[in-house]
Amino acid sequence: MRVKMEARKVMLLLLLCSYFLLAAISAAPQTCPADVSSGCSDETSGEWEGEFFPGISKIKYEGPSSKKILSYKWYNAEEEILGKKMKDWFRFSVAFWHTFRGSGADPFGSQTKFWPWEDGTNSLAMAKRRMRANFEFVKKLGVDYWCFHDRDIAPDGKTLEESNANLDEVVALAKELQGKKIRPLWGTAQLFLHPRYMHGAATSSELAVYAYAAAQVKKAIEVTHYLGGENYVFWGGREGYQSLLNTDMKRELDHLGRFFQGAVAYKKKIGFNGTFLIEPKPQEPTKHQYDWDAATSIAFLQKYGLLEEFKLNIECNHATLSGHSCHHELETARINGVLGNVDANTGDPQIGWDTDQFLTDIGEATMVMLSVVRNGGIAPGGFNFDAKLRRESTDVEDLFIAHISGMDTMARGLRNVAKLIEDGSLGELVRKRYQSFDTEIGAEIEAGKVDFETLEKKVLEWGEPKVPSAKQELAEMIFQSAL
Amino acid sequence: MRVKMEARKVMLLLLLCSYFLLAAISAAPQTCPADVSSGCSDETSGEWEGEFFPGISKIKYEGPSSKKILSYKWYNAEEEILGKKMKDWFRFSVAFWHTFRGSGADPFGSQTKFWPWEDGTNSLAMAKRRMRANFEFVKKLGVDYWCFHDRDIAPDGKTLEESNANLDEVVALAKELQGKKIRPLWGTAQLFLHPRYMHGAATSSELAVYAYAAAQVKKAIEVTHYLGGENYVFWGGREGYQSLLNTDMKRELDHLGRFFQGAVAYKKKIGFNGTFLIEPKPQEPTKHQYDWDAATSIAFLQKYGLLEEFKLNIECNHATLSGHSCHHELETARINGVLGNVDANTGDPQIGWDTDQFLTDIGEATMVMLSVVRNGGIAPGGFNFDAKLRRESTDVEDLFIAHISGMDTMARGLRNVAKLIEDGSLGELVRKRYQSFDTEIGAEIEAGKVDFETLEKKVLEWGEPKVPSAKQELAEMIFQSAL
Amino acid sequence: MRVKMEARKVMLLLLLCSYFLLAAISAAPQTCPADVSSGCSDETSGEWEGEFFPGISKIKYEGPSSKKILSYKWYNAEEEILGKKMKDWFRFSVAFWHTFRGSGADPFGSQTKFWPWEDGTNSLAMAKRRMRANFEFVKKLGVDYWCFHDRDIAPDGKTLEESNANLDEVVALAKELQGKKIRPLWGTAQLFLHPRYMHGAATSSELAVYAYAAAQVKKAIEVTHYLGGENYVFWGGREGYQSLLNTDMKRELDHLGRFFQGAVAYKKKIGFNGTFLIEPKPQEPTKHQYDWDAATSIAFLQKYGLLEEFKLNIECNHATLSGHSCHHELETARINGVLGNVDANTGDPQIGWDTDQFLTDIGEATMVMLSVVRNGGIAPGGFNFDAKLRRESTDVEDLFIAHISGMDTMARGLRNVAKLIEDGSLGELVRKRYQSFDTEIGAEIEAGKVDFETLEKKVLEWGEPKVPSAKQELAEMIFQSAL
Amino acid sequence: MRVKMEARKVMLLLLLCSYFLLAAISAAPQTCPADVSSGCSDETSGEWEGEFFPGISKIKYEGPSSKKILSYKWYNAEEEILGKKMKDWFRFSVAFWHTFRGSGADPFGSQTKFWPWEDGTNSLAMAKRRMRANFEFVKKLGVDYWCFHDRDIAPDGKTLEESNANLDEVVALAKELQGKKIRPLWGTAQLFLHPRYMHGAATSSELAVYAYAAAQVKKAIEVTHYLGGENYVFWGGREGYQSLLNTDMKRELDHLGRFFQGAVAYKKKIGFNGTFLIEPKPQEPTKHQYDWDAATSIAFLQKYGLLEEFKLNIECNHATLSGHSCHHELETARINGVLGNVDANTGDPQIGWDTDQFLTDIGEATMVMLSVVRNGGIAPGGFNFDAKLRRESTDVEDLFIAHISGMDTMARGLRNVAKLIEDGSLGELVRKRYQSFDTEIGAEIEAGKVDFETLEKKVLEWGEPKVPSAKQELAEMIFQSAL
Repeated sequence: MRVKMEARKVMLLLLLCSYFLLAAISAAPQTCPADVSSGCSDETSGEWEGEFFPGISKIKYEGPSSKKILSYKWYNAEEEILGKKMKDWFRFSVAFWHTFRGSGADPFGSQTKFWPWEDGTNSLAMAKRRMRANFEFVKKLGVDYWCFHDRDIAPDGKTLEESNANLDEVVALAKELQGKKIRPLWGTAQLFLHPRYMHGAATSSELAVYAYAAAQVKKAIEVTHYLGGENYVFWGGREGYQSLLNTDMKRELDHLGRFFQGAVAYKKKIGFNGTFLIEPKPQEPTKHQYDWDAATSIAFLQKYGLLEEFKLNIECNHATLSGHSCHHELETARINGVLGNVDANTGDPQIGWDTDQFLTDIGEATMVMLSVVRNGGIAPGGFNFDAKLRRESTDVEDLFIAHISGMDTMARGLRNVAKLIEDGSLGELVRKRYQSFDTEIGAEIEAGKVDFETLEKKVLEWGEPKVPSAKQELAEMIFQSAL
Repeated sequence: MRVKMEARKVMLLLLLCSYFLLAAISAAPQTCPADVSSGCSDETSGEWEGEFFPGISKIKYEGPSSKKILSYKWYNAEEEILGKKMKDWFRFSVAFWHTFRGSGADPFGSQTKFWPWEDGTNSLAMAKRRMRANFEFVKKLGVDYWCFHDRDIAPDGKTLEESNANLDEVVALAKELQGKKIRPLWGTAQLFLHPRYMHGAATSSELAVYAYAAAQVKKAIEVTHYLGGENYVFWGGREGYQSLLNTDMKRELDHLGRFFQGAVAYKKKIGFNGTFLIEPKPQEPTKHQYDWDAATSIAFLQKYGLLEEFKLNIECNHATLSGHSCHHELETARINGVLGNVDANTGDPQIGWDTDQFLTDIGEATMVMLSVVRNGGIAPGGFNFDAKLRRESTDVEDLFIAHISGMDTMARGLRNVAKLIEDGSLGELVRKRYQSFDTEIGAEIEAGKVDFETLEKKVLEWGEPKVPSAKQELAEMIFQSAL
Repeated sequence: MRVKMEARKVMLLLLLCSYFLLAAISAAPQTCPADVSSGCSDETSGEWEGEFFPGISKIKYEGPSSKKILSYKWYNAEEEILGKKMKDWFRFSVAFWHTFRGSGADPFGSQTKFWPWEDGTNSLAMAKRRMRANFEFVKKLGVDYWCFHDRDIAPDGKTLEESNANLDEVVALAKELQGKKIRPLWGTAQLFLHPRYMHGAATSSELAVYAYAAAQVKKAIEVTHYLGGENYVFWGGREGYQSLLNTDMKRELDHLGRFFQGAVAYKKKIGFNGTFLIEPKPQEPTKHQYDWDAATSIAFLQKYGLLEEFKLNIECNHATLSGHSCHHELETARINGVLGNVDANTGDPQIGWDTDQFLTDIGEATMVMLSVVRNGGIAPGGFNFDAKLRRESTDVEDLFIAHISGMDTMARGLRNVAKLIEDGSLGELVRKRYQSFDTEIGAEIEAGKVDFETLEKKVLEWGEPKVPSAKQELAEMIFQSAL
Repeated sequence: MRVKMEARKVMLLLLLCSYFLLAAISAAPQTCPADVSSGCSDETSGEWEGEFFPGISKIKYEGPSSKKILSYKWYNAEEEILGKKMKDWFRFSVAFWHTFRGSGADPFGSQTKFWPWEDGTNSLAMAKRRMRANFEFVKKLGVDYWCFHDRDIAPDGKTLEESNANLDEVVALAKELQGKKIRPLWGTAQLFLHPRYMHGAATSSELAVYAYAAAQVKKAIEVTHYLGGENYVFWGGREGYQSLLNTDMKRELDHLGRFFQGAVAYKKKIGFNGTFLIEPKPQEPTKHQYDWDAATSIAFLQKYGLLEEFKLNIECNHATLSGHSCHHELETARINGVLGNVDANTGDPQIGWDTDQFLTDIGEATMVMLSVVRNGGIAPGGFNFDAKLRRESTDVEDLFIAHISGMDTMARGLRNVAKLIEDGSLGELVRKRYQSFDTEIGAEIEAGKVDFETLEKKVLEWGEPKVPSAKQELAEMIFQSAL
């Protein structure tokens, strides 16, 4: 038998080929045949010259009456709203993966996006060129932040050393391109794409995978620190299960707890002061992800003594997939003191998977900003556009349109909150609902000083309580009138 | 203007009429006109004579080959399985509300069930007659437990005093009818039906309602204690919100925390040793209930220092409404040490509300029992049939059929678990998956003794991890072969 | 044995008591004890004097800057938009059942609404008083239409004759109160509340129930005709199944087909020219309703030869429960030529049952109006507010607030559509997408004149197609900018 | 500027590279670098020698007590059940795509399956080797059918001619390997993976794509016909929309109607007598697919005059994604005379996307078989395993385990149906429910001979109907006792 390739050998080949497909993130061609005249080997070493987005100049605020597609109608970075500049409320960030590694692939379809700067490879040279495109984009959009996974900015190597070396090379360029103003809102490690993580990273049934994940996170924290990142995110895409029948959930959760404790220890050791963020998501790709929602994440952090060390990165699409409104998840995080960042996107209300669309619903944006304003802002967190173009949107221009639309929507949300606060009637409606507790006996109850026997006596004295209308329709009318 | 009835007056009238409709629970006629020959006034004082379920004798185990509808084919109370009698694994309980106050009403339909012992009133006499029916039912079924809400066993009075007096009278009868063997699996207070609780009980915006709820819970604990109840349940049907726009979620949750602390203090004061149980449910009747699921409840209990004082009552239908499998919720409770009771029912996989059907899915029952057996049983908790006949099932006999079917299904689940354990291969499959952690380095990692730097060194030494198949299909095949 | 009441007798009693509870629709007290001083017997015959809504005058348009709660900010009845008066686009209708029979009850809670004009009975006198309240409300709101079920406007009698007589009496009053301008948008028969309909009406397993439903629909059509109703609606709340195990779906559907054919024949016989409308709903109260969604209804109508005789009444909340956007259902009806009416409400995106909330989402309202404008309006249909106050909204004023908010939201939707049409760019974007079919070969393909062999030849000639961006984000930006 | 690759050029390159990734279906490496010693160029032309599944012999029936993993415990091909051999009830088919092109990739993860016979290319030689593996698998499993998409059995070429030539070459081999017994249950065209189909195939906004799809379907029908396929399936994965804002739904549906009419004409022209099947699916990859569910497909087929020409291929996972039980979809197809084929799989009840798992739920399998038996079987359709291994199941053996488990589960379903029919009580329960229609007046009503006036007279004569219990719990008990 001439050709006998075992899985192991294919795996090796695969590694040699630097072949880790970014299924949804990048199904881009990574190798190319020798017989193509515009040969890959030449191109990959070549430098891209000129602009990546020729014909698109820096996006400017032109106000709501502007008909110019590539302009801000509502987002005015330097304008002060509720005592802060808009840019300081939002701290908008571009997600490198969706914007520069999104291929348009989906579970039933291959790549649809063929950006002019891509040469079809996953080479180091291509990684650098892509990084240059990123910063041109970030600057033309006029934002100060970007977010990344280790493996979307630099190619996987044959070994961890090689992967780390690749990463270092790209990161050095990013540092240079960042200049003084731009920096990562956060960095993170990609612990879900590679087959080694198929059973989880920190929760893998394989010890060697746990170790690998630790090594990868260690490096990603270092790199984020080096680039001046203000936060570091954990999204445990594979930290969950596909079936309880073959899973020891308790053991896996204990491993996850240990893993986070180890990350905290390392962060402190190297003096990284950025916030650690958990990003809850209920499921997908797993049947059940351990960081299901905000409350589940809080229970986990409490159990493993980590509540002081972490905040949450709330993503609206993840919120609705877990059966909550985005506003609910933000408020849950806020009142527990762990609202750290927002992944500003939205799902489709009729769809049961993560569509990561740019949020264009003004009412929703207003509710998001209600929570953020109540929180006094979310710095050092911000708003990361964990959002992507639809598979069918294939013009380079679409990348700008989508971000502008998302930023303008959030800006309208903030402006609406300012109107609501100025008007005051919604806040007053809520305050009045609870005024029976703004009394002496109310204060005592809230302080835990009134026992059940005393309360029973009060009831016998007071008789049947009067219960007023909750005025929900009025609250909705007031809210809507600010939109 | 002659007739001028304000809401307050109607409310008063309503109280006078003892008129609190049990919409879904009992929409039964409570008063009746004088001109009906078989006059209510006579009947309400009359005693029911003879059997409530004539023609139905005690249900017996007859084995799987029996064709007799009113017999157990799989549940054999005294038979020992996995070292315990079946009755001790299950501790089955009849839910008074569904079985005796269920009217068949739904949001679009009025009462369909007209049991022969009902006289159309909500009188004290009727309450007592109903209690007699309950115990005949419990005994004919051959179970030792029942569960109740205060207000489904005794009519609401005009005042709390009167309500309490009514309750005392019915409870005294129940105590007598219980005999030595039967007792409540748990009692609870109905804090959701009455309009006073429309904004919540412990989380109502009205202080007087908070107090009323405390007084009602105080009494319900006393009564449960008196009857020898082994647990006490909190289901916060109204403890949640309809809209975040008019809600101060933080303040409401703080009140809920204080409320539970007060209940714990009172329980200790009177020497009630039964377990306190929270019953998570995501929503319905509220848009969002604070005890969303097991993890959310655990986060809440941790935050308010109550984790040592409470366990959870997991209901399968609530589990699936919250986006989890029932097995997941049971396992979450189990590995956190708070699996206290099971509400043995099921929802409809295509329906987004609580259908409270009797569980007849053998696979599901087997998974439920997997968790219970791993937990070493759930005593002093048990399996309460929080399940009801369909609206269209209107024969008295249907009450027996449904319970028998539910008990037989659970019994098959237990028998299947015994087969799985005897076979051993499923357990072995799971054990093997994690064996890389059953090593020296594994133990050190699990003990938190290995830092990220060490792990990185290991990775450089070990190279790419080998990751075996998770064998999910094999696990499913083994599981299925036991059914 | 003294007291022996069989179900049948209780049923009789129940009928005598005029006792059919309107669980969710009206759980209002229907009888009252003799010993209450403000005796019911006097009150039920008494006439209500003066206004039902004192202190509330006719609602006027005051423009967006008005801070007056009880005013229209966007709905200006006589203002012309896109060539029609706003009132002619909308033809708003008040739903009698939600507004006047809604009790606030839910599956876990009893009545919360105690309107001052209600005396706690379901008497004929009360029915008339309620009808007067209805017309004062309709007039103060400034709308021209109302909708009703037979049984919510008049009490059920002991027999069909008596029910019909009751209905005639109330209808005569309604006719008088309507005056020349006001009339029903549609009438319908309540075939879901009474226990006789528990297995369905036209699809009941009992022939006598099928007959009863026919008789009731016959009368309801007559009454709608008499009142000048412009449409007649069929909502088959119980026409479906709870379990396929005990259901002969084919036979039930055939019965439903026959039933509709009979209704059409009768309508023609009496010269009623109003449109027959089916109102699709996927489920609730049944597990599966036969009129699941627009497409399912169309399939049914086609199969039974009824497509020319019926249109659809699309309800937004039903749309989302069936997994579609409201816009999708409207468009499906529109392009099939059967868009007949809109039930203007909304559900909660996180809730799996019919919440029937007033629609206050401006984006959603704009999409609804896009379909309606494309349809050239929906007369003789209109917008019926099949929407109800939240259980906790208990002020009379809330009834007005909710309707004003709903009408203003729809008005904003229409104004936004006018902006979109004036701007033109969204329409142009769509037109351009399909322009390859606006060619000669395109026309031939659309005419069915090009076979597969010819198409294959074209492909060989043309080579790989060029496929441009779908510009979804741009479409969303344009849409959003009109809000 | 040296490197300037426009999207178009990259596209070309891509075509040259035969590079269309099968994202979820096959993310396998398609090219490999020259410097790998076990050079691709040699391997791709090399023939695989020996068995693909050494150590696995033909799977045999060994009965329920067997502990051998690779044996049938319930499926006994030649055994007669209900008058037919098991193999004739099922006509099981292996899905080529899942079994041989499934890579384990998901939206967040790259390939995990590296079968030993794969060389990492998408070459023609590899396609042939894979086809050999397919037939060894099919034969060892002991089934007679297989299903395929054109593009999963043969590589896409640079042009349609080349693609067709590739297909012809592989199909010739398949024909040879099939022998006399094995043939396709059905073939189909892959109209969703390639970027050209991103806006749809028959419903693409681009005419040239419509033509391309026609040419591809033409060829796929020819090939299916050549191989003796008994059916041809249309799954319109991209025939739907992502957003209604940029979509002309009416025009797209009209195109789809024309497309199917063209396919029917071509089928007749070439004398292909296989059944055309539509496979409904509600969504994914699109937001909304036009063949949403069985009823929607029927409405569509009726509208475009195609109801006589098509049947439906019901997939259980698609059924539940559309909000129906699988049993409902099968019954809907059955009673409309269009039940043509079953895609035997299942989803996860908590997951909102297509998981395509092997069905291992015995109760579900029993319900599926109830419909199939009532239909008198589904030949010339059958049961295709449109089901895949979990991403984490990476052993070759797992392919067998999964299919055996799926076949045994279906076999248990059939055996259970036989028990139910023999017992007879479930059928009798249903028959009795409708017996009031088995009367003279019932027959007249069912024949459409009784008008509403006559029915009203009957009601006045008969009085209040008697309505018996629906006995749902009894039906469930009987059903469950057969499992």
